[in-house]
Order: sequence, then C-alpha cells, then structure tokens
Amino acid sequence: MENESYTLNFKSVPHGTETSKLIYFKKTKDLFEFFWSTFRRNYEEIIIVTDEKIAELKNVKEFLEISKEKHAEIVTIPTGEINKTFDNVLVMLNRALSKGFSRRCTFVALGGGVISDMCALASSLYKRGAQLQIIPTTLLSMSDAAIGGKTGCDYGAYKNMLGTFYPANTIYFCPEFLDSLSKKEYYSGLAEVIKTAMLYDKDLFELLKSDTRKVKDRDEVILYDAIKKCSIAKSRIVEQDITEKDIRRQLNLGHTFAHALESVAGFGVVPHGCAVAWGIGRALEMSLNLGYCSKEYRDDVFELLELYGYCTKAIPDEIKNLEDAGARLIEAMKQDKKNEPGKICFILQKGLEDTVIINVDEKQIKKVL
Amino acid sequence: MENESYTLNFKSVPHGTETSKLIYFKKTKDLFEFFWSTFRRNYEEIIIVTDEKIAELKNVKEFLEISKEKHAEIVTIPTGEINKTFDNVLVMLNRALSKGFSRRCTFVALGGGVISDMCALASSLYKRGAQLQIIPTTLLSMSDAAIGGKTGCDYGAYKNMLGTFYPANTIYFCPEFLDSLSKKEYYSGLAEVIKTAMLYDKDLFELLKSDTRKVKDRDEVILYDAIKKCSIAKSRIVEQDITEKDIRRQLNLGHTFAHALESVAGFGVVPHGCAVAWGIGRALEMSLNLGYCSKEYRDDVFELLELYGYCTKAIPDEIKNLEDAGARLIEAMKQDKKNEPGKICFILQKGLEDTVIINVDEKQIKKVL
Repeated sequence: MENESYTLNFKSVPHGTETSKLIYFKKTKDLFEFFWSTFRRNYEEIIIVTDEKIAELKNVKEFLEISKEKHAEIVTIPTGEINKTFDNVLVMLNRALSKGFSRRCTFVALGGGVISDMCALASSLYKRGAQLQIIPTTLLSMSDAAIGGKTGCDYGAYKNMLGTFYPANTIYFCPEFLDSLSKKEYYSGLAEVIKTAMLYDKDLFELLKSDTRKVKDRDEVILYDAIKKCSIAKSRIVEQDITEKDIRRQLNLGHTFAHALESVAGFGVVPHGCAVAWGIGRALEMSLNLGYCSKEYRDDVFELLELYGYCTKAIPDEIKNLEDAGARLIEAMKQDKKNEPGKICFILQKGLEDTVIINVDEKQIKKVL
Repeated sequence: MENESYTLNFKSVPHGTETSKLIYFKKTKDLFEFFWSTFRRNYEEIIIVTDEKIAELKNVKEFLEISKEKHAEIVTIPTGEINKTFDNVLVMLNRALSKGFSRRCTFVALGGGVISDMCALASSLYKRGAQLQIIPTTLLSMSDAAIGGKTGCDYGAYKNMLGTFYPANTIYFCPEFLDSLSKKEYYSGLAEVIKTAMLYDKDLFELLKSDTRKVKDRDEVILYDAIKKCSIAKSRIVEQDITEKDIRRQLNLGHTFAHALESVAGFGVVPHGCAVAWGIGRALEMSLNLGYCSKEYRDDVFELLELYGYCTKAIPDEIKNLEDAGARLIEAMKQDKKNEPGKICFILQKGLEDTVIINVDEKQIKKVL
C-alpha cells in the first residue's frame, strides 16, 4: 500500500529534571530546620509523603507538625510493602488536586523505597509532572532505590509492574535515619551495598570483607562512605542510561532470582535485599557453571555473603518445603520485566567489576536451584 | 550548612520513542488487513483498546474478531468523556498483566481522544513503558489529540490532571472514520483545525473561509489535506518542545477559556472543540482589548467562527442562566495546568500566525466575559 507519511523526530529531553543533586549530611541537630527552610525557599506548594513508622520518629514528628502549621500537606501511608498500591498513589494525587496545587508544587518523599517509589510515581503523573525531593530513610533506598528515577507501585499480585522514569530534583542522604532500622531492614539494605561493590567498587568490596565488625555495628564513618560510594557509582551508570536500555541493566545483578524468590515465598516473607543477596549467590553459581567466572571469585563472594549471614543455598529455607520450589522459581522468572518474549535474562559476572548480560536456557537455571 | 554533594547530569533521552511515524491513508477497502499484518509483523503481544461505539462499526467489528482469533487482546471501554477514568486505565493495564505481556508488547488505541489519551497513559505506565500505536477515529484526534505524546485521564471532577508525555510509535490517519461522526463530533474537531490554521497555516485559514460548503459536507480531498496540514504543523511544534516548556504552549490558543467553560457547564455539556471555538473568540476579543491585534483580524476570525455556527458571545447559551457565570469561569481558569501560582495565563494573537503568551489580570478577563 502506497501512502504519504511524515516522520516526527523528537528532540531528546530529560525526564522531568536535567539534574539530580545528591547531598550528604553528617549527623546534625539542625537537619529538619535545614529541610524546611530549603523546601520553603524553593516551593510555594509542598506535599510531604511518609509512612506511619517514620512519622513516629521524634524529630520527624516535630518536623511534620511545623510543616503542617506552615501549610504543607502531609500524607501518611501505612508502613510496609503491602501498601505499595496504586490506591495509595491516588491518595497522594487526590490530596494535591484537592488543594489546587499547580504543577510547580513539590512532592517530598520521606521514607524507604516503598514511599519514594510511590511518591515519585505520583509526582510524575501530577499534571504531567510536578517537582520531587527524596529523603531516603533506609540503607536500601540510600544506596540504591532513591537514585536514578525509577518510580513504581504494585498492582494486585504484580510487583512494581506499573511505573515511569522520573528522577528527583534533590536527594538528601542522612545517616541518622539508619539508627532507626531493624536488623532485618539494615541487612536488607546491606545486600545492595554488596551488589554495588561487586559491580563497580573493588575497594568497597575489600572493606566489606575486612571491616565486618564495624559494618555490622553500623559504624557512622564507614556507612557515610559506603552510601556515598554506592549512590555515586549508581549515578554514573544512570547518567548514561536512565531508561535501562543498556548498561543500567547491570544493576539487576541478583534480581532475576530475587524477584522470583519474593514472588514464590509470598511478598514480604523474604526482605528484598535478602532475596537479592541470595540471588547474587545464585548468579555467581551460574557464572561458574557457564564458565564465566573462576572458582576463586565465586568462593570469595560466597564467603562475603556468609560473613553477613545471607543464604547461599540453592533453595532458601523460606521455600524449601514447597513442592517443586525450583520449577516455581523458574515460572516466576518468566514474568521478569527485563525479559524478551520467551527468554530469561540474567546478569552474570566474570569477576569483580566485570559484568555480562545474557539469556540463559531453563536447563542451566535448574542446575543452580 | 556545609555538605558534600554530587550532581547527577542526566543524558537527554526521548520519552518512549525517538520518532513517531504519521501515515496518511486514502479510503481503501484493505485498510484493516493492512493494520493487522503490520501489527503482527512487528509485535508478538498486542492489546487493542477501543470504545463501544467504534467497536460496532462494520469494518471494525470484523477487524476485532480476526484480531481476537489471532490472540490479540481486545479491551472495549464504554463510549464518552465520562469514562476517561483512572479505573479504565487500570482495566487496560490489568488485561496486559494478566496475559503476562512483556514491555515489548504494543498497545493499540482505536478511537477518539478519550481512548487514545487513556491508552497512551496505560502504555507509558506498563512495566515503565510499552509500545504504542494510535488509529484516531475523530477529526479532533486526527488534527490534534493523537499527535505529540500527551497522555492523560480525569480524576473525579479534575479533568486531564493525571498523565505523562509518551508519544506513539506510529499514528494511522484514515479519513473513512470521519463518515461515522455525528454533526456535533465533526464540528468539535473542526474547531481544532481552525485553531491550527490561525496559529500556523494562512492557506488553510483562507481555504476554511472560501470552501465552507465543501468543509461542511466533509469533502474527502479537503479533509485529507486539512488533516495532513494540521498534524504536520503540530508535529513541527512538538518536535521542538514535547514537554510544553515553551513554544508548544501556543497550541493552547482558546483553551484557557475552553477548559473553564467545560468545567462550569458540567463536563460533556459543551463538546471540547465547541468550547475551544468559543475560547478562540474570547482570546481574540482579549487580544483586541489589550492592543495586540487589529479590529480587522478579530472580525475576520469572528466571521469564520460564525460561518461554522460557533458561539462568539461573551457568555455561551449553555451557561447564560447561571448566576455569576463570568466569576465562575474565572474561578475555573485559576485551576488551569499552565498557570504559575496566582496568575492566569493566556495565548493571544497579534494576527494570523503571530502568537503571544502572557499572564493577564482578572480585570481584563472580566471585560470579555
């Protein structure tokens, strides 16, 4: 069929913001005063989104009370992954709409990955894009989730399946929030630190091996440094490939396995980071089987994972009593967003800071489960 | 407060697709065969979204039956602006999720602006961005809504307040759908053609004045040409400024007034295009009052609007019995997405193809209502 046509060539433009500023704080008593004066100086309309647990922290409570007095809107979402729903995204949007906020308003996410993913999604949808600030409060979000513009929420049983790319204007890193984390939350975040070290930072990898005691004790100086290294390493990747067409896919090391485990175990049973740590072990086992990495490197990584108490078994305890646990993991992997139709994609390593992305057939996957 | 910081500079990337291909069809009996073979050749996973009225058209009915047999998913939304809801966007997303579609699947919007805006929003959210094809079926969507990547839906009483920028891979222009439009729908679309002519195309403006009879009779040759001119004129603007930071705002000529009228009259009472035509008249009256345009140009535009039966009165009949209609229109204008806080923004003209964007105070707005 012969037809006339016209090809519209879009000018490339940043998604939402041209730059994200990452600011690192040492512990300070003036933190929340600084936040409030910064936000008020830059924005007339402010909506702060947090969760019930964070809202109860003493400093935060005062901050939210002052913010409310000064006409910021406060939205408090119940705590936990189970509340990462589109309904809660709509709660945020509805609040901003009901106050008549313009698209120049700012959303402020004060919380872990659940809050920042949802709040960023709300911000990206509000009048086709409002402003966004993130104050991550967990090690996981400081080292990974808050950086790089992935937004999202769950829909029914489907995890993180709805979302956009929409980075924050500013991300504020405040290590004092780390004291409020449970052991489980802390170790969940530490897995993403290990992942980033394996991908991009030999020195951090060595430090995690040598200074185990300090890391476990949440040493302030070490964590400040680790968070800065992880967030900047991730930033350098995202700068090149925000929409995950290419190099950014490396950041999913361990995640094909992790998402499958989280799905099969039932969401919330295995914390995300702990699933990632297990997935990293499986990815290294697969790397060894397929001849990508040496036995030494595989053992080195296993030793580090075990130092911090992560599971390196083929099938984790949480699902070992399930019939056909391996087959169910593979079924879940087929749903991964990164896959091409009919293939399952893995991030593997040849060694430290040496990463490959490949499609693997089911036979090879079964071998490591 | 002294802090360490890092500034993340994002590489500019296209939103979703680098190019949109616009393809113009003459009337042909093979149209739907062509569609199906094109979609199937390019996509393994296809979800077609349409509305109940379009689904009943004879050719479309056959097309949908064949598509379904060949394992495309069909989602049919009830017809009308009232159904432009987030719930219906979720219906589309849920269907694709339940079929396990990958992010390489394509959404196909087959309908007017309501369907294409919602389907494009769904596509932009699906696994952070699936593929998108649009087959606009109304004059309004062929000349305006389908081009340029604005997606959206309403939320409660808030019109088009949620959305993203996410252009289609391909847009298929098929004038044969125009025969199916009611008179009201046709004239609603014609207003956007007049708007585009005023902004960018003197020749089209003259043709609309001289060939009134043919335009009213939906002459095939004239419409094919007008649609091509409008869609390419709009494309050239969007190529420069997809996210409406600058020149694209011109396309809102008449729209500050139009959105206010639609809101005050109750959504659906005045068709969007008819509200735009009235808004164009008001914008020209304001341009004259503020000394931007000549009396001759204002009269020229009024004459054209009246030739096609559009309202050029200060207060349209639909709301003339409302108490304080003018004040209510101004209140509604304050909600416009384009506004800076506390200001109301208008697109005015100095003459044909000569447009200005300014903030106007309430006293001047009252004068034209």
